[in-house]
This record gives sequence, structure tokens and C-alpha cells, in this order.
Amino acid sequence: MKELSNLMDYRPGIKAVDATLRDGGLVNDFFFTDEFIKNLYNANLRAGVDYMEFGYKGDKEMFDPEKFGACKFCDDDFIRSIVGENNTDLKIAVMADVGRCNYKEDIHDRSESPVDLIRVATYLHQIPTAVDMIEDAKRKGYEVSCNIMAVSNAQESDVKVALDILGKTPVDVIYIVDSFGSLYPEQIARIASIYTEYADKYNKKVGMHAHNNQQLAFANTIEAVGDGVDWLDATYGGMGRGAGNCAMELLLGFLKNPKYNVYPVIQFIEKHITALREQGVVWGYDLQYLLTGLFNQHPRTAIQFTNEKRKDYSEFYKEIIAQD
Amino acid sequence: MKELSNLMDYRPGIKAVDATLRDGGLVNDFFFTDEFIKNLYNANLRAGVDYMEFGYKGDKEMFDPEKFGACKFCDDDFIRSIVGENNTDLKIAVMADVGRCNYKEDIHDRSESPVDLIRVATYLHQIPTAVDMIEDAKRKGYEVSCNIMAVSNAQESDVKVALDILGKTPVDVIYIVDSFGSLYPEQIARIASIYTEYADKYNKKVGMHAHNNQQLAFANTIEAVGDGVDWLDATYGGMGRGAGNCAMELLLGFLKNPKYNVYPVIQFIEKHITALREQGVVWGYDLQYLLTGLFNQHPRTAIQFTNEKRKDYSEFYKEIIAQD
Repeated sequence: MKELSNLMDYRPGIKAVDATLRDGGLVNDFFFTDEFIKNLYNANLRAGVDYMEFGYKGDKEMFDPEKFGACKFCDDDFIRSIVGENNTDLKIAVMADVGRCNYKEDIHDRSESPVDLIRVATYLHQIPTAVDMIEDAKRKGYEVSCNIMAVSNAQESDVKVALDILGKTPVDVIYIVDSFGSLYPEQIARIASIYTEYADKYNKKVGMHAHNNQQLAFANTIEAVGDGVDWLDATYGGMGRGAGNCAMELLLGFLKNPKYNVYPVIQFIEKHITALREQGVVWGYDLQYLLTGLFNQHPRTAIQFTNEKRKDYSEFYKEIIAQD
Repeated sequence: MKELSNLMDYRPGIKAVDATLRDGGLVNDFFFTDEFIKNLYNANLRAGVDYMEFGYKGDKEMFDPEKFGACKFCDDDFIRSIVGENNTDLKIAVMADVGRCNYKEDIHDRSESPVDLIRVATYLHQIPTAVDMIEDAKRKGYEVSCNIMAVSNAQESDVKVALDILGKTPVDVIYIVDSFGSLYPEQIARIASIYTEYADKYNKKVGMHAHNNQQLAFANTIEAVGDGVDWLDATYGGMGRGAGNCAMELLLGFLKNPKYNVYPVIQFIEKHITALREQGVVWGYDLQYLLTGLFNQHPRTAIQFTNEKRKDYSEFYKEIIAQD
């Protein structure tokens, strides 16, 4: 049983990271209203959330700004229009994907930006570019985290090499990312023990980003807490790609640090998340996501199934099984 | 980390129990069509499910047969109309609630009944009657299990006394029941260690019945598997009271015994569970259930909130918090 086992106490080092605009934006092409974003910012402030991720630093040469909302690009001026100079305890994060952002140009010095944290997202085969992005962001003055995506598909030995490389960079936090929502809590325990071993060696923190394909996003996140993981991603109402993420209302209900408060989250969901669902924005557990999770596949086929409003789950099952 | 840790192997003693008609019946007053029940029976047969619970042995003096479907009462003739003599590997179960059934009259000898397993459900303060029901059912020739409900509200010392009393009866299986959906996996680990201690002493098996208020029904069920719990309740689509139960499609996806097959479950959900939802039958995770789970309360206020089609979650939060 876990060291943090009495469930009454809390670890002050835990950080709650709101990824609603970023992972949630993947299901509505980032078309959030300014009112939504401002209210979310205020809800996070009142809820005691530690970091709010505003979206991606998408490359405008690659993604048409006409086809996405502002959170796809996270220009400093856009963020400033919401948060001003953000003289609060809530820090601002953006995600920079390897290969999908022009980080040298689009990420300015922290002294000129309202952003505090650059979250570099990489697959294992892109680690050298991720390292360059980490060093670039650190040089510019940011806190930096790194997401190693799709860990359920990775060889442990490759993960260890990546952690050793990342450990030698100035990155602050390294994330476990269950992109396919296919991991069980016992697997999280094993993966976390590998990550924390390298994190301890190199004086880094470890984070957890979970998906809900098997209704385990929250369970895997609290499993990770018990395993020594400190940075926890969550989204309001679990809003996120496919089956969605760990729900912020579940996470703050669980965390015992008195600085957290679930009530503003409930209020925000009642007003804004319910409205998004009524407008037809779709995410959350469903059989197609269970199946891609179960078979440890990228959810893209399940997302297509959802977008086509298909309900023939058993046909989808056969399509999945038939794939080689 | 768990003994059953490689996640590749399986424990042959695991039993999957389909509680769809019983716990699911609580959200539609047991008004299932014969076609639904027959197809569910066939799906369970094909999926390799071990036990199928048909419903309650409700006392007709207490519950008006006009107001409930047949699964509220589970007359032997009704079950026989579905399963015939049931010459299959799928065993038939019914639940008998302490204080809500006339067990001496309504439960006939097993030799005259298609039922194999009587599931006695009791609160801690009703244990003596539960013991009488267990002895009665055993005398009549049945396998017998006992659910100790609302364990999250119980004192551990009381639970131990109850387990010691039940251990001395001829009951076969004793269930952990998280009626309020308020337990975290680490608490399941602790509770399971108490249950398995008494079960080992008295040569009983332990079962798990979870609710999904905090999206932990599946997570708590597989936690229990790792803790030595063998009997696992689940329902198709998670159909059950309030936030519902552990979903059968998740559970069979997890269990590695080759006798289990998730495909018939997917087919049944596609055809029948989706239709129930479209007819307006409501269950599953929602904020009102999260809140009663979080505050370790019976979900009855949340069920009322649902039935009144309320969406003012923040008002409900205040109602819950204001309760003394």
C-alpha cells in the first residue's frame, strides 16, 4: 500500500494544471469565447489551480488562423487580453509540439510574455528537437516541462534513454502521458517508478496526463499521486480529445490541500461546460474509445467514428480487430 | 505493487457477475422487455459471464406488482420463461434484501427453482436477519452470498464483528459494497485486506460491488482483483442506480481469462442499452453523484435532483454542504 496512504494528509508540492483550453480545444478547434476563457481563468483563480494552460503555440504557416480559435496559437497579446499582467498565484502555460510550432520565432522572452511555463510535447523519436526546444525556452527564462507522448506504446528501455537525455537538460518537469488511455493503474505504478527514479537522480519533478478511454483517467492520476508524481493535468468536465481527460472536479475533490476549492469548478461546469455540450461539442467515455484504449491504439479511428455520428459499435470493433 | 502484477496472467477463480437487471432495474422500475432479458441472457452466455442476476425477490405485500417489472420479484416461473431449465454454464442469481422480502415463503427449494445463487443484501445493523436468510437459503440448497452495504459509512471494528459472524454461517461469498461510490482505490485495498483476512479464516470468497460516483467503479473493481477479491459485479453500459456501476465492457476487456469475450457485450449495448438511453432512462456519472460520493452520502438526494431534471449543480452543492 502507498506511502501517502492515510488519504487525510496532502503533499504541498502537488500542482494542479488546468488543460481545458488545450486538450479541450482539440474537440472544438479551439473556438472558445472570450467570456468562456475569462470565466475559466477566474474559476481557476478561485479554485486554487496552480497552472492554466491556454493552448498551443501552433505554427501559423502550418495551421490556418481562420480555421482555429486563438487558443491554437496563444499569441502573447491574446493571453494578455484575458489575464492582463496576471499578478496572481495562477501561472500561465502553453504547449509547444515538436514539429508543429516555430518556437524560435513565436516564443518570445519571458520578460515580454504573460506566459510562465512552456510545455514541450514530443514523441520518443523526436527527443533531440525536444531538447533544443527545452534549452531555447529555458534560455528565454521560462519554466519548462516535457511530455513524452504515447508512453503505452514505448519500450521501457527507450523511455529510460529518453529520461536520461531529458534529465541532463534544464527541463523542470517530465510528464507521463497515456495518450491512448490504455494503461491500468498498476502499469502507471510501474511507469511512475521509472520516471521518479530518473527525476530523483536529476532533480526533476514528474507529471501525469491521463485519458479516459477506460474510465481510468482520474484513477490513474490519483494512482500517480501515490507513486510520487506531483504535477497533475485535469480539465473541467474532463473536456479533451476523444474520451477526454481526468476531470478537474474529481481531482480537486480528492486533493486535500486547503488551497483547493471545488465549488468554482462546479459553478463553471454548470454555466459553460453544459452549454458546450448542448451546442454539440462531444467528448467523453464511449465504446469506440474503450476499444482503441483496450487495443492500445491511437484514438484517431474512434474520433472519426464519433465525428461521423456512427453508433454501430460492433462494426467498429470488427474494423479495429481486422487491422494489422 | 500487486502480486497479480504482470497483468498478463489471470486468476481462474474470478467470477464475473452481471447485475444489469438488478442494479439497472433501479433506474427503470425493472420494466425490461422479455426481448431485452432474453438477449441479455444470450449475451452473457456468449461473453462467458459466470452469474446473471435477474433482480430482487421483492415482497409483493410491500411492493405493488403493477408498479414494477417482473425483475423486481423474480418469480421462478418468470425466470424459467426466459432461461428454461438453463442447462448452461451461466448461473442464475437473485437478490434478497433484508426487510424487503418474504424469504421464507418466496424462496423455494433450489430443486424447484432455476435460481442457483441467493444474494442476501444487508446493512450492518441487520446482520442477525441476514444470518437467518443465509441459513434459510443454504438449507434450501442454494449458493449464498452476502452484501454488506454502505461499507464507506461503517466503523472498521463493526465490519470485523460482522465478518466474524458471517464467517461462521454457511455463506459462500461476502461482498464489499461501496453503495455511495465514495471510496478511493487505496481505501478498497485496506477494506479488502480486512475482508480477505476473515474470508481466509473461514474459507469464504470475497466480492466487489462498486458505484461510479467518482468514475472509480471500474478502477476500484480492478484494484480489488489485485487485492485477492474474486467475485466482481458489473453491468452492461454501467447501468445502475445513480452514477451506475462498473461497466461490463470495461471489466471483460480487463480480465484475461480466455473464457471471457467482450464482443457480445458491445453488440448488446449497441442494440439495447443505447435504446434505453434514447427512451430517457438515465444513469451514469454526473456532478450531483460526484458530490454525494465526495461527501460520503447516500445518493438519494442526487437521484431526486436527476429525476427533477435539475441542472443547478452549484445550488445542489450548497444544499449538500448545508446538511448537518
